[in-house]
Amino acid sequence: MNETICALATAPGGALGIIRISGAQSLEILSRIFSKDLTNAKANTIHYGHIVATVPAGSATTPAGFPAGPIDEVLVSVFRAPHSYTGEDSAEISCHGSRYILNKVLELLTANGCRMANPGEYTMRAYLNSKLDLSQAEAVADLIASSNQATHHLAMSQLRGGISTELSLLREQLLKLTSLLELELDFSDHEDLEFADRTELMALANKIDKHITQLSQSFELGQAIKQGIPVAIVGKTNVGKSTLLNRLLHEDRAIVSDIHGTTRDTVEDTIDLQGVTFRFIDTAGIRQTTDQVEQIGIERTYAAIDKARIVIWMVDVEPSQEELNKILILTENKKLIIVRNKIDKTKNSPFTLVKIPLIEISAKHNQHIDQLEQAIYQAADIPTLSDTDIIVTNARHHDALVRAQGHLQRVLDGLNNQVSGDLLSEDLRHTLDTLSEITGGQITPNEVLGNIFKNFCVGK
Amino acid sequence: MNETICALATAPGGALGIIRISGAQSLEILSRIFSKDLTNAKANTIHYGHIVATVPAGSATTPAGFPAGPIDEVLVSVFRAPHSYTGEDSAEISCHGSRYILNKVLELLTANGCRMANPGEYTMRAYLNSKLDLSQAEAVADLIASSNQATHHLAMSQLRGGISTELSLLREQLLKLTSLLELELDFSDHEDLEFADRTELMALANKIDKHITQLSQSFELGQAIKQGIPVAIVGKTNVGKSTLLNRLLHEDRAIVSDIHGTTRDTVEDTIDLQGVTFRFIDTAGIRQTTDQVEQIGIERTYAAIDKARIVIWMVDVEPSQEELNKILILTENKKLIIVRNKIDKTKNSPFTLVKIPLIEISAKHNQHIDQLEQAIYQAADIPTLSDTDIIVTNARHHDALVRAQGHLQRVLDGLNNQVSGDLLSEDLRHTLDTLSEITGGQITPNEVLGNIFKNFCVGK
Repeated sequence: MNETICALATAPGGALGIIRISGAQSLEILSRIFSKDLTNAKANTIHYGHIVATVPAGSATTPAGFPAGPIDEVLVSVFRAPHSYTGEDSAEISCHGSRYILNKVLELLTANGCRMANPGEYTMRAYLNSKLDLSQAEAVADLIASSNQATHHLAMSQLRGGISTELSLLREQLLKLTSLLELELDFSDHEDLEFADRTELMALANKIDKHITQLSQSFELGQAIKQGIPVAIVGKTNVGKSTLLNRLLHEDRAIVSDIHGTTRDTVEDTIDLQGVTFRFIDTAGIRQTTDQVEQIGIERTYAAIDKARIVIWMVDVEPSQEELNKILILTENKKLIIVRNKIDKTKNSPFTLVKIPLIEISAKHNQHIDQLEQAIYQAADIPTLSDTDIIVTNARHHDALVRAQGHLQRVLDGLNNQVSGDLLSEDLRHTLDTLSEITGGQITPNEVLGNIFKNFCVGK
Repeated sequence: MNETICALATAPGGALGIIRISGAQSLEILSRIFSKDLTNAKANTIHYGHIVATVPAGSATTPAGFPAGPIDEVLVSVFRAPHSYTGEDSAEISCHGSRYILNKVLELLTANGCRMANPGEYTMRAYLNSKLDLSQAEAVADLIASSNQATHHLAMSQLRGGISTELSLLREQLLKLTSLLELELDFSDHEDLEFADRTELMALANKIDKHITQLSQSFELGQAIKQGIPVAIVGKTNVGKSTLLNRLLHEDRAIVSDIHGTTRDTVEDTIDLQGVTFRFIDTAGIRQTTDQVEQIGIERTYAAIDKARIVIWMVDVEPSQEELNKILILTENKKLIIVRNKIDKTKNSPFTLVKIPLIEISAKHNQHIDQLEQAIYQAADIPTLSDTDIIVTNARHHDALVRAQGHLQRVLDGLNNQVSGDLLSEDLRHTLDTLSEITGGQITPNEVLGNIFKNFCVGK
């Protein structure tokens, strides 16, 4: 924390590259390689000047051959503690985006006293300087990674303190419960006094439990939104699964396609519908093995269904009652969409057995694909969220919520079994402490912090 | 020029992304989607706030499902005409580097009155607003593309007005020559008056010609530095050419290797020696055909030598006098480095015929490779440059210099042949006009501008 750190905060390869410096020595170090003295520069001001190749005596010198002129014409933005992202004195150098220049400036900064920043170190410092709580710090990484409206909304809501506000509400209620219990404890000698009505305590504890459970359960949806809602397309060979998948994937919904295009390789087999990502699971595997699949219910299809939240069962001819029963059992806890493909060829044979609504399409001729997309989105069952609704997306938060539920359950059990107030009080404190892990609370071990920030990008 | 433009100025994928806005409406448009009114913001100040999803009536609305909260927490830098890069009112929005966010902000800006910028449009506006001359504007693209000390130095020198200063010196001399000639012209009736001594005129014209020739000739070196000095490695089969090439290429001189690493794919078969790029030409071709090469001098090797500035001739046993003569003729206008490989195996047989210094190496055992690298750098014959030396790197500038030389040659011929002053005066004007094309002069047709800026990156 005493060191001044530097890093490239933008991806290399653009017209501009931003180098970020943070720490008490930021402006002193920067002034050594800048054409102007910035040590007294005011907060939130921008300064035009040159980066000059000043290397302290004893450091490696630049190779001969070319005169050591200025490295770049730059703009420097100056931020002052505590009104900066990290809460420390800091600066951002806006350079031309040449790799040579960016390397050279970083080299000069480190030669003059900066250290290269670790991943997420700026945000970690912001947390340690109380600019953000821990859940907000984690939201920064989620925000940078957000690729559609849904993930963006969840990250932004968390960054703006959504979960923190929710937890302080819970904390208030838990403290009220604790104080009621402790009141009872203090006066336990006076058996005639009944300060805490156990029924009232029970009602409050149940209310808290319901609230925590609600948050904890939102994680399933949060994860699905963050990683993409898993969808399995199952059905017999030659029913048109690959054609449908290609039809769904080839939709290009990018706003600025040349920017989006670069992610194509890594996010294969996902589509965005109304701002939510849907991920087709294990489809390559299914595609490869369909040749041997004559019956629904073989292991591989079963595994795909098991991982899915939504199952698209494709048929072209009407399934037998036996097949229908089998798929209904397999998808008992899933959203099932039955799709009848090839309607251009078979439109004169209406289905009679299938009672749930069918989507009738022609994957080949691109008919009614929009209806199917609508059905997929609806099957995801994304609730209409208000600005204050909280969806938990972070596994660390979910883990803490589940553990807090465990502690609270002991309180509930204790209340039911007339356990004495001092024992309940301890369980309540555990509940409180566990919940406060989410926002960082008073104590956060280095190991925990290290794990949280190691997956951040460098420069943030 | 009346429109306000916007573009992403950084590569997508980093912690931060910078969106640049320029034009008279910049702060008005930005204020419509920003949480604060910036229309009266002072120059060179930084403002923290939120981008909010304000879309004018009638525009496409965001899809339902998620509440339209703020898009991002950002910092906005405000610049005021004429003290900005473009010379116009402008702003830079520092966003989180999420593709979704960056797309969304660009979408909001365009919905509220901005137009997406063309490649190089910011720099073109800077030129049209006289913030830079044309050669300086071109240097911006070179600076962004610069990947080592040499290309960086040349671009930086040009950006700082190196060639512009040189050309204004030439312009002064040409104007002096013109005025001397015109003086002669005005008084041509008075045959007894000799205002312009033709010998003096001749000396001045020759001096200018020498100067232009020098600049024009520097283009060969400038091109070599910009594209990499071409080096051919030739020699018989199994003499160790591939081993040497791999040995030279595998040297990793990157300062920040994870940044440099990303360019590896596109700059294959080049090495940086003391800040200068050397490019091994057609080596894949040579490698593929060496099996059939028993004699030096076949067409393919000849072609490689022809394209090279430096030829490395690899031998393991002493070449015959005939072979030696052949290679000396082929490399007459090149820098020849004779490399004796496999010295670990053959050190007891000194060469007697070869009179030029040999570099004795073992490519396999990495012996004396540093000596060879030193020899390659020296063979490139890069002059020791002072801060004021001008190397022309731009084909458009070279073309103008060559044409200016042509016009000046007619002046020289005219002076020799006692051609009358008014004819010479016209050729002098052509020389001046042609030279002024380099910095843009008074008039630059749109077509020329379009060609210059079309290869810029977007956002600069």
